[in-house]
Amino acid sequence: MENCLPNLDSLQFVLHVLGGKWKLHILSILYFGKKRFKELEREIGTISPKMLIKELKDLEAAGIVYRQTFNTVPITVEYSLTEDGLTLKPVLDHVNEWAVHLKQKVNNRNKRATR
Amino acid sequence: MENCLPNLDSLQFVLHVLGGKWKLHILSILYFGKKRFKELEREIGTISPKMLIKELKDLEAAGIVYRQTFNTVPITVEYSLTEDGLTLKPVLDHVNEWAVHLKQKVNNRNKRATR
Repeated sequence: MENCLPNLDSLQFVLHVLGGKWKLHILSILYFGKKRFKELEREIGTISPKMLIKELKDLEAAGIVYRQTFNTVPITVEYSLTEDGLTLKPVLDHVNEWAVHLKQKVNNRNKRATR
Repeated sequence: MENCLPNLDSLQFVLHVLGGKWKLHILSILYFGKKRFKELEREIGTISPKMLIKELKDLEAAGIVYRQTFNTVPITVEYSLTEDGLTLKPVLDHVNEWAVHLKQKVNNRNKRATR
Protein backbone atom coordinates (compact mmCIF):
# COMPACT_ATOMS: atom_id res chain seq x y z
CA MET A 1 0.00 0.00 0.00
CA GLU A 2 3.03 2.26 0.28
CA ASN A 3 2.73 3.60 -3.26
CA CYS A 4 -1.01 3.79 -3.60
CA LEU A 5 -2.86 6.51 -1.71
CA PRO A 6 0.08 6.47 0.68
CA ASN A 7 -1.42 9.03 3.01
CA LEU A 8 -4.74 7.41 3.68
CA ASP A 9 -4.57 9.03 7.04
CA SER A 10 -4.47 12.53 5.58
CA LEU A 11 -7.28 11.75 3.16
CA GLN A 12 -9.45 10.48 5.97
CA PHE A 13 -8.60 13.58 7.93
CA VAL A 14 -9.89 15.76 5.07
CA LEU A 15 -13.07 13.73 4.71
CA HIS A 16 -13.57 14.17 8.42
CA VAL A 17 -12.87 17.91 8.32
CA LEU A 18 -15.19 18.54 5.37
CA GLY A 19 -17.78 15.90 6.18
CA GLY A 20 -21.20 16.54 7.63
CA LYS A 21 -24.05 18.59 6.39
CA TRP A 22 -22.74 22.17 6.58
CA LYS A 23 -18.99 22.54 6.10
CA LEU A 24 -18.98 22.69 2.31
CA HIS A 25 -21.94 25.02 2.39
CA ILE A 26 -20.07 27.37 4.73
CA LEU A 27 -16.95 27.25 2.53
CA SER A 28 -18.98 27.90 -0.62
CA ILE A 29 -20.20 31.14 0.95
CA LEU A 30 -16.79 32.19 2.28
CA TYR A 31 -15.25 31.75 -1.19
CA PHE A 32 -17.08 34.98 -2.02
CA GLY A 33 -15.35 36.85 0.77
CA LYS A 34 -15.48 37.34 4.53
CA LYS A 35 -18.77 37.21 6.36
CA ARG A 36 -20.12 38.05 9.77
CA PHE A 37 -21.72 35.32 11.84
CA LYS A 38 -25.22 36.67 11.28
CA GLU A 39 -24.65 36.90 7.54
CA LEU A 40 -23.55 33.28 7.38
CA GLU A 41 -26.54 32.25 9.42
CA ARG A 42 -28.89 34.14 7.13
CA GLU A 43 -27.31 32.85 3.91
CA ILE A 44 -27.44 29.22 5.01
CA GLY A 45 -30.96 29.71 6.28
CA THR A 46 -31.62 26.37 7.90
CA ILE A 47 -28.75 26.02 10.35
CA SER A 48 -29.09 26.62 14.10
CA PRO A 49 -26.69 29.14 15.70
CA LYS A 50 -25.32 26.36 17.92
CA MET A 51 -24.54 24.15 14.95
CA LEU A 52 -23.02 27.03 12.98
CA ILE A 53 -20.70 27.82 15.89
CA LYS A 54 -19.64 24.17 16.08
CA GLU A 55 -18.98 23.88 12.34
CA LEU A 56 -17.01 27.14 12.28
CA LYS A 57 -14.94 26.01 15.26
CA ASP A 58 -14.09 22.76 13.46
CA LEU A 59 -13.04 24.64 10.33
CA GLU A 60 -11.03 27.08 12.44
CA ALA A 61 -9.28 24.22 14.28
CA ALA A 62 -8.37 22.67 10.93
CA GLY A 63 -6.81 25.96 9.84
CA ILE A 64 -9.25 26.48 6.98
CA VAL A 65 -11.26 29.36 8.41
CA TYR A 66 -9.99 32.44 10.20
CA ARG A 67 -12.07 34.14 12.91
CA GLN A 68 -11.49 37.80 13.62
CA THR A 69 -13.16 39.79 16.38
CA PHE A 70 -13.57 43.56 16.49
CA ASN A 71 -13.95 45.61 19.63
CA THR A 72 -17.30 47.09 18.75
CA VAL A 73 -20.44 47.15 20.90
CA PRO A 74 -21.85 44.60 20.42
CA ILE A 75 -18.72 42.71 19.44
CA THR A 76 -18.33 41.99 15.70
CA VAL A 77 -17.04 38.61 14.55
CA GLU A 78 -15.95 38.05 10.98
CA TYR A 79 -15.04 34.79 9.29
CA SER A 80 -12.81 34.43 6.27
CA LEU A 81 -10.75 31.74 4.56
CA THR A 82 -7.13 31.21 5.51
CA GLU A 83 -4.50 30.63 2.84
CA ASP A 84 -5.12 26.88 3.20
CA GLY A 85 -8.82 27.47 2.82
CA LEU A 86 -8.15 29.34 -0.42
CA THR A 87 -5.84 26.66 -1.82
CA LEU A 88 -8.56 24.12 -1.13
CA LYS A 89 -10.76 25.72 -3.79
CA PRO A 90 -9.04 24.28 -6.92
CA VAL A 91 -8.83 20.91 -5.15
CA LEU A 92 -12.58 20.92 -4.50
CA ASP A 93 -13.19 22.02 -8.08
CA HIS A 94 -11.28 18.95 -9.25
CA VAL A 95 -13.28 16.63 -6.96
CA ASN A 96 -16.39 18.37 -8.15
CA GLU A 97 -15.75 17.66 -11.83
CA TRP A 98 -15.48 13.97 -11.06
CA ALA A 99 -18.44 14.09 -8.65
CA VAL A 100 -20.86 15.73 -11.06
CA HIS A 101 -20.09 13.06 -13.64
CA LEU A 102 -20.50 10.22 -11.13
CA LYS A 103 -23.68 11.56 -9.60
CA GLN A 104 -25.25 11.93 -13.02
CA LYS A 105 -24.47 8.29 -13.80
CA VAL A 106 -25.82 7.06 -10.46
CA ASN A 107 -29.02 9.07 -10.95
CA ASN A 108 -29.50 7.67 -14.44
CA ARG A 109 -28.99 4.13 -13.17
CA ASN A 110 -31.50 4.70 -10.37
CA LYS A 111 -34.04 6.11 -12.83
CA ARG A 112 -33.66 3.08 -15.07
CA ALA A 113 -34.00 0.75 -12.07
CA THR A 114 -37.28 2.32 -10.94
CA ARG A 115 -38.90 2.26 -14.40
CA MET B 1 -23.43 30.73 -4.78
CA GLU B 2 -24.05 29.90 -8.43
CA ASN B 3 -20.43 30.37 -9.49
CA CYS B 4 -18.64 29.05 -6.43
CA LEU B 5 -18.63 25.33 -5.79
CA PRO B 6 -21.79 25.26 -7.88
CA ASN B 7 -22.38 21.56 -7.38
CA LEU B 8 -22.31 21.41 -3.64
CA ASP B 9 -24.73 18.58 -3.93
CA SER B 10 -22.29 16.46 -5.92
CA LEU B 11 -19.44 17.28 -3.57
CA GLN B 12 -21.52 16.24 -0.60
CA PHE B 13 -22.46 13.08 -2.44
CA VAL B 14 -18.76 12.22 -2.86
CA LEU B 15 -17.98 12.95 0.78
CA HIS B 16 -20.86 10.66 1.68
CA VAL B 17 -19.74 7.91 -0.71
CA LEU B 18 -16.12 7.99 0.47
CA GLY B 19 -16.80 8.84 4.10
CA GLY B 20 -16.55 6.48 7.02
CA LYS B 21 -13.72 4.41 8.31
CA TRP B 22 -13.14 1.89 5.52
CA LYS B 23 -13.98 3.10 2.03
CA LEU B 24 -10.66 4.76 1.26
CA HIS B 25 -8.83 1.80 2.73
CA ILE B 26 -10.73 -0.56 0.42
CA LEU B 27 -10.02 1.64 -2.59
CA SER B 28 -6.33 1.90 -1.72
CA ILE B 29 -6.12 -1.91 -1.92
CA LEU B 30 -8.17 -2.21 -5.12
CA TYR B 31 -5.88 0.30 -6.86
CA PHE B 32 -3.37 -2.58 -6.95
CA GLY B 33 -5.80 -4.81 -8.83
CA LYS B 34 -8.84 -7.00 -8.27
CA LYS B 35 -9.24 -8.88 -5.03
CA ARG B 36 -11.42 -11.64 -3.65
CA PHE B 37 -13.56 -10.93 -0.62
CA LYS B 38 -11.31 -12.97 1.66
CA GLU B 39 -8.20 -11.20 0.38
CA LEU B 40 -9.72 -7.81 1.13
CA GLU B 41 -10.75 -8.96 4.57
CA ARG B 42 -7.23 -10.24 5.29
CA GLU B 43 -5.48 -7.14 3.95
CA ILE B 44 -7.63 -4.74 5.97
CA GLY B 45 -7.26 -6.93 9.01
CA THR B 46 -9.56 -5.24 11.45
CA ILE B 47 -12.86 -5.10 9.56
CA SER B 48 -15.78 -7.47 10.27
CA PRO B 49 -17.17 -9.42 7.29
CA LYS B 50 -20.55 -7.77 7.81
CA MET B 51 -19.04 -4.28 7.65
CA LEU B 52 -16.89 -5.18 4.63
CA ILE B 53 -19.99 -6.39 2.77
CA LYS B 54 -21.80 -3.14 3.61
CA GLU B 55 -18.92 -0.92 2.50
CA LEU B 56 -18.46 -2.85 -0.75
CA LYS B 57 -22.19 -2.63 -1.48
CA ASP B 58 -22.07 1.15 -0.99
CA LEU B 59 -19.10 1.46 -3.35
CA GLU B 60 -20.83 -0.81 -5.86
CA ALA B 61 -24.04 1.25 -5.68
CA ALA B 62 -22.01 4.40 -6.35
CA GLY B 63 -20.51 2.76 -9.44
CA ILE B 64 -16.96 2.83 -8.10
CA VAL B 65 -16.47 -0.87 -7.46
CA TYR B 66 -17.44 -3.78 -9.68
CA ARG B 67 -18.44 -7.14 -8.19
CA GLN B 68 -18.00 -10.26 -10.29
CA THR B 69 -19.10 -13.74 -9.27
CA PHE B 70 -17.74 -16.99 -10.68
CA ASN B 71 -19.62 -20.28 -10.72
CA THR B 72 -17.13 -22.21 -8.67
CA VAL B 73 -17.80 -24.34 -5.59
CA PRO B 74 -17.73 -22.52 -3.27
CA ILE B 75 -18.69 -19.46 -5.28
CA THR B 76 -15.84 -16.99 -5.97
CA VAL B 77 -16.50 -13.27 -5.70
CA GLU B 78 -14.00 -10.75 -7.04
CA TYR B 79 -13.99 -6.99 -6.59
CA SER B 80 -12.33 -4.52 -8.90
CA LEU B 81 -12.53 -0.82 -9.72
CA THR B 82 -14.86 0.42 -12.43
CA GLU B 83 -13.71 3.04 -14.91
CA ASP B 84 -15.08 5.71 -12.55
CA GLY B 85 -13.18 4.11 -9.68
CA LEU B 86 -9.99 4.35 -11.72
CA THR B 87 -10.56 7.99 -12.72
CA LEU B 88 -11.02 8.79 -9.04
CA LYS B 89 -7.35 7.99 -8.36
CA PRO B 90 -5.78 11.20 -9.74
CA VAL B 91 -8.54 13.19 -8.02
CA LEU B 92 -7.73 11.58 -4.67
CA ASP B 93 -4.02 12.17 -5.30
CA HIS B 94 -4.78 15.87 -5.73
CA VAL B 95 -6.82 15.99 -2.48
CA ASN B 96 -4.05 14.05 -0.82
CA GLU B 97 -1.36 16.58 -1.70
CA TRP B 98 -3.37 19.32 -0.05
CA ALA B 99 -4.36 17.07 2.87
CA VAL B 100 -0.80 16.04 3.76
CA HIS B 101 0.23 19.66 3.87
CA LEU B 102 -2.77 20.67 6.02
CA LYS B 103 -2.47 17.76 8.43
CA GLN B 104 1.20 18.54 8.99
CA LYS B 105 0.34 22.12 9.87
CA VAL B 106 -2.48 21.10 12.22
CA ASN B 107 -0.19 18.59 13.95
CA ASN B 108 2.53 21.21 14.38
CA ARG B 109 0.03 23.66 15.85
CA ASN B 110 -1.27 21.02 18.26
CA LYS B 111 2.28 20.15 19.33
CA ARG B 112 3.04 23.81 20.02
CA ALA B 113 -0.22 24.15 21.96
CA THR B 114 0.56 21.22 24.28
CA ARG B 115 4.12 22.34 25.07
